[in-house]
Amino acid sequence: MIQIRKAVPKDTWTIIAPARGDRPFDFSKPEDDRVSSTDCPFCEGNESKTPPEVYAIRNNDNPNSPGWKVRVFPNKYPALDNGENASVIEDDLFKTMGGFGFHEILVETPLHDTTMADLTEPEVRLILQTYVNRYKDIISNPSIDYVNIFKNHGRRAGASLYHSHSQIMGTPFVPDLVKTEFTNTRSFFERTGECYYCRLIESELVSSKRVIAENKEFIILSPYAARVPFEIHIIPKTHRSKFVDISEDEIQLLSKILKNTLLALKNELGNFPYNYSIHTAPDEGTSWRGTKHYYHWHVEITPRITNPAGFEWGSGNSINIVKPEEAAARIRQHYR
Amino acid sequence: MIQIRKAVPKDTWTIIAPARGDRPFDFSKPEDDRVSSTDCPFCEGNESKTPPEVYAIRNNDNPNSPGWKVRVFPNKYPALDNGENASVIEDDLFKTMGGFGFHEILVETPLHDTTMADLTEPEVRLILQTYVNRYKDIISNPSIDYVNIFKNHGRRAGASLYHSHSQIMGTPFVPDLVKTEFTNTRSFFERTGECYYCRLIESELVSSKRVIAENKEFIILSPYAARVPFEIHIIPKTHRSKFVDISEDEIQLLSKILKNTLLALKNELGNFPYNYSIHTAPDEGTSWRGTKHYYHWHVEITPRITNPAGFEWGSGNSINIVKPEEAAARIRQHYR
Repeated sequence: MIQIRKAVPKDTWTIIAPARGDRPFDFSKPEDDRVSSTDCPFCEGNESKTPPEVYAIRNNDNPNSPGWKVRVFPNKYPALDNGENASVIEDDLFKTMGGFGFHEILVETPLHDTTMADLTEPEVRLILQTYVNRYKDIISNPSIDYVNIFKNHGRRAGASLYHSHSQIMGTPFVPDLVKTEFTNTRSFFERTGECYYCRLIESELVSSKRVIAENKEFIILSPYAARVPFEIHIIPKTHRSKFVDISEDEIQLLSKILKNTLLALKNELGNFPYNYSIHTAPDEGTSWRGTKHYYHWHVEITPRITNPAGFEWGSGNSINIVKPEEAAARIRQHYR
Repeated sequence: MIQIRKAVPKDTWTIIAPARGDRPFDFSKPEDDRVSSTDCPFCEGNESKTPPEVYAIRNNDNPNSPGWKVRVFPNKYPALDNGENASVIEDDLFKTMGGFGFHEILVETPLHDTTMADLTEPEVRLILQTYVNRYKDIISNPSIDYVNIFKNHGRRAGASLYHSHSQIMGTPFVPDLVKTEFTNTRSFFERTGECYYCRLIESELVSSKRVIAENKEFIILSPYAARVPFEIHIIPKTHRSKFVDISEDEIQLLSKILKNTLLALKNELGNFPYNYSIHTAPDEGTSWRGTKHYYHWHVEITPRITNPAGFEWGSGNSINIVKPEEAAARIRQHYR
């Protein structure tokens, strides 16, 4: 059976067509192989190959030397740069902003060959604490409207280097997908008086068929209108619009459940490429006043085992060949 | 210099960051190799391996036999199917439609090893005429709101089979990206009294730096806020909202310029994977009355030489490492 399901916060249709997974492929599938550590600029001991660090958690007081656990520095090939101007030029047909912004690399471990799924929970906690710290620093710049925190794992997920890392990007605009989520969750709030995600958590816990795991503070869901096979959302049970307001207790529980989720996915799918990103409300500026009531921060994990194709590029909609309830059942069994 | 540019019809920001193209990659790049024709269900002589044809241009009156130039049949692994129901179930949190629709394969040539760039202009014309014919047939179904016409070339562009083909998909909804284009071009029309694309053509022909080629009826542009390197839009000079209203003269000129554009891209980039899709207004239903004034059909070609990554998935925005003016200059030199 084929279904077309609406993702309410994104207001987009996804076609759920499991039988398409049976179609023949006459191309060979590439694998994301291990890449050797020779000359890797993210490895311990190669600190001089990166721009100077802006933040690190380390055993000593010698920046840009070995002895760190987590290390952050500006991207050497930035998509946005704080040396660019922040001007806006606009006419009817064309609108341009200067490329002002921040684009940082967070190296998650000094070890070349360790993925986030293999780290310990205290090690993942350091990464999350670093997200919070860098977020606070970058958002304090008055030209920055939003801080994008995301991860590319594997070549097919857009990583250019193998060594495990996240990226933190301060943009002078609120991303369009997040704006869409604000618009639609605001309209849900105006219609029902409730936060969409709070209502969703309640409902999903009752039906339980898309719940993968939960702990005191987080629920792991296979979203109803998942855009890609094995898409997973990690949603805090406590209503908060902004990731940066996360409590110490939540950081600890998130590090545990994030690590276990990536491990469960790895056990089910092998060493698959994936992206994740943190969706959050920005500071309560004039344009997004009220997000604290209607928005609810969360993490979206998108495995990249299929490629968006002409239908996706042309329509903005998705075809997903794994039913979300089936994906939930398959991942759930790997939890410990 | 980094710029952030707005695509007006899609109302999205794209970051244009050419220096990012210089970053090192430690993964090897996969190639889309030729795949042999053994057992290819799209090859002449293998007609029994596909569902029965619904349309063909052929030298004889024997359906599902050799002797065809272009052949259309239902996708054996459809994303939507006209055997599904067209019901809608809706509550506050979840909204579902039955998977009713059409999903057809158009095999563009009986030859296994020929890409659209290698076909003759009369051969491409048969493909475009088939698009129009299938469009008319599918849109006549009252449950179908939109006909998506698109092409996946190469594994990394989402093709599962190598043999050159297009896809035609009738959906019971107007795609979200196209709806966004309607919303924003309508707002442009209300503000200025003009069609955005008509104004754009005028302006681009004056500055000429993003014009790749033109003929009497079409202009080939590198769009100002291109989402991916070497993105190309083919826009008819005559204002028409619906592709299906294309004239015979336009079909001839489009087949020539489409073939030459794909050939120019191939000469510049090698045998690269790409998608294209036709963006059109639907029939003038109640929800989209007025599209005939403010919308303007066109073709969007998206080469897939970079992969959308965590930033793109999390933000809905793009980072493009090739400046559109540079892309235009490089492709322009290959036109004949």
